[in-house]
Amino acid sequence: MLKKSPLAPKLFPNLPKIKGIRLACIHSGIRYKDKLDLSLIYMTKETNVACVVTRSQTPSAPVIWCKKIRNIGKARALIVNSGNANAHTGDKGMETVKKTVNAIVNHIGCKKNEVYVCSTGVIGEFLNENIITAAIPKLIKQKASSWKEVAESICTTDTFIKGAKSKFKIEDKQFNVVGIAKGSGMIFPNMGTMLGFIFTDLPLSANILNILLKEAVEKSFNSITVDGDTSTSDTCLLFSSPSISLNRSIKTIGDKRLNFFREALDKVLQSLAQQIVCDGEGASKFITINVSSVKSQKIARNIGLAIANSSLVKTAIAGEDPNWGRIIMAIGKSGSPLIQNKISIAINKVKITDKGILIPNYKEEVVAKKMKNKNIVIDIDMGMGKEKSTIWTCDLTQEYIKINADYRS
Amino acid sequence: MLKKSPLAPKLFPNLPKIKGIRLACIHSGIRYKDKLDLSLIYMTKETNVACVVTRSQTPSAPVIWCKKIRNIGKARALIVNSGNANAHTGDKGMETVKKTVNAIVNHIGCKKNEVYVCSTGVIGEFLNENIITAAIPKLIKQKASSWKEVAESICTTDTFIKGAKSKFKIEDKQFNVVGIAKGSGMIFPNMGTMLGFIFTDLPLSANILNILLKEAVEKSFNSITVDGDTSTSDTCLLFSSPSISLNRSIKTIGDKRLNFFREALDKVLQSLAQQIVCDGEGASKFITINVSSVKSQKIARNIGLAIANSSLVKTAIAGEDPNWGRIIMAIGKSGSPLIQNKISIAINKVKITDKGILIPNYKEEVVAKKMKNKNIVIDIDMGMGKEKSTIWTCDLTQEYIKINADYRS
Repeated sequence: MLKKSPLAPKLFPNLPKIKGIRLACIHSGIRYKDKLDLSLIYMTKETNVACVVTRSQTPSAPVIWCKKIRNIGKARALIVNSGNANAHTGDKGMETVKKTVNAIVNHIGCKKNEVYVCSTGVIGEFLNENIITAAIPKLIKQKASSWKEVAESICTTDTFIKGAKSKFKIEDKQFNVVGIAKGSGMIFPNMGTMLGFIFTDLPLSANILNILLKEAVEKSFNSITVDGDTSTSDTCLLFSSPSISLNRSIKTIGDKRLNFFREALDKVLQSLAQQIVCDGEGASKFITINVSSVKSQKIARNIGLAIANSSLVKTAIAGEDPNWGRIIMAIGKSGSPLIQNKISIAINKVKITDKGILIPNYKEEVVAKKMKNKNIVIDIDMGMGKEKSTIWTCDLTQEYIKINADYRS
Repeated sequence: MLKKSPLAPKLFPNLPKIKGIRLACIHSGIRYKDKLDLSLIYMTKETNVACVVTRSQTPSAPVIWCKKIRNIGKARALIVNSGNANAHTGDKGMETVKKTVNAIVNHIGCKKNEVYVCSTGVIGEFLNENIITAAIPKLIKQKASSWKEVAESICTTDTFIKGAKSKFKIEDKQFNVVGIAKGSGMIFPNMGTMLGFIFTDLPLSANILNILLKEAVEKSFNSITVDGDTSTSDTCLLFSSPSISLNRSIKTIGDKRLNFFREALDKVLQSLAQQIVCDGEGASKFITINVSSVKSQKIARNIGLAIANSSLVKTAIAGEDPNWGRIIMAIGKSGSPLIQNKISIAINKVKITDKGILIPNYKEEVVAKKMKNKNIVIDIDMGMGKEKSTIWTCDLTQEYIKINADYRS
């Protein structure tokens, strides 16, 4: 792994086992010399799944496969390799996915459309399916791996491994949400992508999982950006194991008990999303952008992302420079409807503009001092409504250029 | 001025005088110590004008003013200052524009809606109108300035001054198109913006100028990007002086003689746009992206801009790394309809992918060698239609971060 990000959390959390979910991973040698690089996660019968993938128009072969099977909503296995994205590999790449799926079907006796496939790594190179099919029987026979090992096996340019958990009670039974992720979000490094795999032991239908995953992804993985680039392989899967049953099962999205799950899911996804930002290439600051007082959450996200994707805002923050004119520029660039003389901006709780102009007696040095902090919070009050949203990003540093200009060559 | 860009042209061109257009500029002391910073260009009666401004939702006070008067289509004066953008300055900023306009009206006896105002520089600081109104009588009395001096006076973070010219004949009379510009395009530096002022002695109505300017801007200033950021102050003006008359005047947009003008206008605007890219902060490579075989020019521009705005493509080029997977990623990110197995990519004429996959016997080192060139040409053939378009950009280097993280502080 590369040098650990200065924003990395101290420890990988101690993630609980989820009944009905078995983990296995090995070093198969797809690309890396020593690193774990192939995981097979297999699930008990009747495991339901929801799947969200990249909006890229040049998706990888595994993404095309996942999109094809996701409407069935059942899962028995997830196979993930790092080192090769199997993207832009044409018909041959799709053949590799199918052979992988067939090999798993033959070994565990499930249906093809219950096998999910994810690949992350180099784009445009052919993935050697023989390495994977040869590894499958070994993965099935070996003793169970840990969440930590699986989280490591899916990493590429990550500088630390990412996991999160949350628990809640329904009918006095304890349920868990466990998640692992990799990547630096939209940053799409040379061998990069965002993958997120979430598991719960609360039994839920694929339909309910789908609605809740989409909601939660909007507020987490879709609320982060590193440099605005989008991977060909981004995939987020939410699995529900039926191993613990409820006396009165949850059948509709209106069931109020779902709020406990919603909260736990948000917590896990937001933690993973924020960890991805903390691993943004070259990141030295963690930036939170709160946009409030707008007519819809969509407008808030639009404005927040315009600020978060602005190279000029990000470089100013890297330089600890309170160059708030760049924030105004980015708000204007968002294309969102606004009234300029209603906008208020604060950085780390110090008000800078109020109702469209600089506050009287503004002291730049006060903000500059606050910006030495690792955590930067930008509050934008648009003065036009009651909705709000939060976006997370990191700064843009010389280290980013160094990593991305020099990495492969 | 900062250290000259390695992509700067050797010389400022020798621009001809345009009959009916008088130039004057001085050092007024708005911000800079020694630099020319205020220009007044005044025009003979019956000068027509077309005006295109930024799409920013937080436009500067001068942009709001220009938008208000541009439908009249007449111009007698253009006043431009550098050092202060008069942006996000509320009602007070608009008062400054009005006082400036009034001062010019009083001195040259024209209408208010014939006076164009542009400001470029720091955002959010109040512009001292007294400096400007005091300078106006001096500007009117002093001897005429040169194009070169005016081009210098509008610069802020530019590392070289920008001008272009072209000529053509109609009815055996020679006509000129002359243009000056400043800025690094969408790069929106600390004190930045894109300004372009174009002058012709071919007499044309405001209506015709408007149509032709919009067409030409699409193919020039709207086909460049440095980092995807949009200024609050971008303004392009096209003035037509009536000083040389035609025996048979051009009255409709269908007049075929307009093609001579179109060609000259395109040449000047594209040269200025390319000069702006060459002055992109930290630029070390000039990048041309040709997208062909698509169903519309809009799709071609969309795809081209997605590539040109990708930090990962730009850093790869800075590192002379033929990381073509990032180009595929950017094409996918554009959201344009496509068929992946029809896409062909070449860099500096070396074919890399054909019909969606890597060509047999692809040799990365051949492309890597070609990428040592200052000029990088990326050809994308989408295999889906007959339209095409070209986008120009520059690479993203450590120098960019240095300039933008450290400039003000």
